[in-house]
Amino acid sequence: MKHLPEHLQALIGQSVQHIDTPALVVDLDAMERNIERMARFAQQHGVLWRPHAKLHKCAQIAQLLQQAGACGHCVQKVSEAEALAAAGITNIFISNEVIAPAKLARVAKLAKALNAQGGRLALAVDGEEGVNRLAQAMQHAQAGDAAIDVLVEVNVGQNRCGAEPGEPAVALAQAIAAQPTLRFAGLQAYHGGAQHLRTAEERQTAIAQVLQLIHRTRHALNRAGIAIALITGAGTGTMVNEAASGVYGEIQPGSFLFMDVDYAANQRDAAQPMFEHALYVKTQVISRRSQHAVCDAGHKAHAIDSGLPKLHGLPAEHALRFANGGDEHGVLHPDSAAGNTSGWLPALGETLWLIPGHCDPTVNLHDHLIGVRGGLLAGVVERILTVDGRGALT
Amino acid sequence: MKHLPEHLQALIGQSVQHIDTPALVVDLDAMERNIERMARFAQQHGVLWRPHAKLHKCAQIAQLLQQAGACGHCVQKVSEAEALAAAGITNIFISNEVIAPAKLARVAKLAKALNAQGGRLALAVDGEEGVNRLAQAMQHAQAGDAAIDVLVEVNVGQNRCGAEPGEPAVALAQAIAAQPTLRFAGLQAYHGGAQHLRTAEERQTAIAQVLQLIHRTRHALNRAGIAIALITGAGTGTMVNEAASGVYGEIQPGSFLFMDVDYAANQRDAAQPMFEHALYVKTQVISRRSQHAVCDAGHKAHAIDSGLPKLHGLPAEHALRFANGGDEHGVLHPDSAAGNTSGWLPALGETLWLIPGHCDPTVNLHDHLIGVRGGLLAGVVERILTVDGRGALT
Repeated sequence: MKHLPEHLQALIGQSVQHIDTPALVVDLDAMERNIERMARFAQQHGVLWRPHAKLHKCAQIAQLLQQAGACGHCVQKVSEAEALAAAGITNIFISNEVIAPAKLARVAKLAKALNAQGGRLALAVDGEEGVNRLAQAMQHAQAGDAAIDVLVEVNVGQNRCGAEPGEPAVALAQAIAAQPTLRFAGLQAYHGGAQHLRTAEERQTAIAQVLQLIHRTRHALNRAGIAIALITGAGTGTMVNEAASGVYGEIQPGSFLFMDVDYAANQRDAAQPMFEHALYVKTQVISRRSQHAVCDAGHKAHAIDSGLPKLHGLPAEHALRFANGGDEHGVLHPDSAAGNTSGWLPALGETLWLIPGHCDPTVNLHDHLIGVRGGLLAGVVERILTVDGRGALT
Repeated sequence: MKHLPEHLQALIGQSVQHIDTPALVVDLDAMERNIERMARFAQQHGVLWRPHAKLHKCAQIAQLLQQAGACGHCVQKVSEAEALAAAGITNIFISNEVIAPAKLARVAKLAKALNAQGGRLALAVDGEEGVNRLAQAMQHAQAGDAAIDVLVEVNVGQNRCGAEPGEPAVALAQAIAAQPTLRFAGLQAYHGGAQHLRTAEERQTAIAQVLQLIHRTRHALNRAGIAIALITGAGTGTMVNEAASGVYGEIQPGSFLFMDVDYAANQRDAAQPMFEHALYVKTQVISRRSQHAVCDAGHKAHAIDSGLPKLHGLPAEHALRFANGGDEHGVLHPDSAAGNTSGWLPALGETLWLIPGHCDPTVNLHDHLIGVRGGLLAGVVERILTVDGRGALT
């Protein structure tokens, strides 16, 4: 566990009003309700859940998820896996391809270390070269038989990574099975693009197509005499569909923990738990002009790849629109369409709460999350969560 | 100076080929040529240059700039100033408004500390409340007379922060002059939006309008009997205009150091030095599909607020187009319009170099810059530059 800076240590137990701006703040009550809802959802649907740590990058949160029943954790990067493992997390799936020999040596070392702790490492592959390189690294590390779980990533519509469904996936599974150091553990079938289709019907249609591709691949594997232990995938946007499919044994949502403007723009499935916003950027007015105010949170404080943040908790007559003010500033305009017909603007020094456009890359901008108990208005800082995997790119 | 992680320490003296991906790499030769060109430009135009450290956030680079003749450094945040000061930088201008009393206490403390070292702190203000709060913090810190330089930020067209030109700026200068602890040091007159106007003529026109607003403000100050020691501002896009104006005593460019896709899209002024790209994201192909390849650098590795990165150094017949693949991936397509008519794609494991869309927020994603001597193809890692101010938001 990294050492906390003094000023953050001193914040614990203090009122939320003492949090300097801009800061990334977690509403712990809302986050915990989101975790409970996810645990209940998974139990009701008889699926395992392996939340994606690319969102929170935080070992303390990974531990909370595990205590609530998560079967393990996904990451996208070897260094994220290493950061979580260093903080005691032992069941990790790198749901991405790793190709560089130097990184594969780290994968092999980590697999050995986690096995020795009774844990497990898994990795996705989408080509034979990747399988061969991984096997070589595992042999070199003398990791032993079946020392790592390997999942074939199948392209189920994302058109990014992934072997094509059917025969190409079978050939890969056979290549894995032929390597004594590797264990063929199933299929990684995640459709990232489907998460943000706005209507529940569009998302259902997209996942129905995913399921057809999985069926085709499963039949081809069956014909080749290869058993599939697990099909895993799904995100917060589509998980109701994968969980109800009877095909997915495990779901991988991440954003349910915090939610963001982008996910909130989705029309909710009736079957989806009521996830709440739990992640906020606290900001402050540093300049007050005649027609607008300027706050101290620009896009070095929150990611704007999926759109700008929204203001949280203002009554309609005080509605504000956030405009991009560059790296260090946000520009706030009265939102007359939403009810602020008087042109009201916050005073100099007033603090405001932003809901980030996209939670994952927003967390990655911050070294710490400030965990608040008792709400954003009258709450108290309960704990500081270190973003152990911040900037973990390799 | 922070301690370097072991794997980065071990990289020093190694070939550029040993740099793991994705990584942020500085071509030190190109950066040093950019610094030389800027130093020569400033000398030729008889202006001081105070490069903006919101770009590099790095004390080692600040020292290089100082050795080349920079008169000091700009930052946007108190914590950036503190990070540079902790590493020995003593002449710092926070070119932004600071309003929170807790932050102003840090400003006062830092001003005292820099004065004691023979250095100097400066701060921008754009309202009387800001002046009063600063004065109160300086008194409370018993910082002494005229212990901090205060510049009136004037709204010269950016329409973000800044007092309106003319009388409002005069009133502020008077408010500053009335406070014994503060020294009225001049006007901050920066037009951020003008930096990215694409033609040299548009930028010239925009700065001509800026100059009118400054003239009006200067006359008003003269009438009030207030001397202006300094007018400061300008960025890499417009600096030829401010430097030639005879009005600006100091320019504040930052991006000249590294350049990026966005600045490269500007039509170059004839008078502008030939600044080169010096900042790259090294990336690697981790998945090779039939029609595209996928690399390991998404927008957690480079900022996309001003557009996507471009591929560097590929011959026309291998031209690739970078498409957004999300937080951790980039999708590479053959760029037939640019000459890649064969559909060529890089092989699995091949490394590529990206020019970031926007250098400032890209640097802020990384804890270290890897400094390479001798070019990107055959060079050697000479030094690792710690991004001291990474994530310095408060």
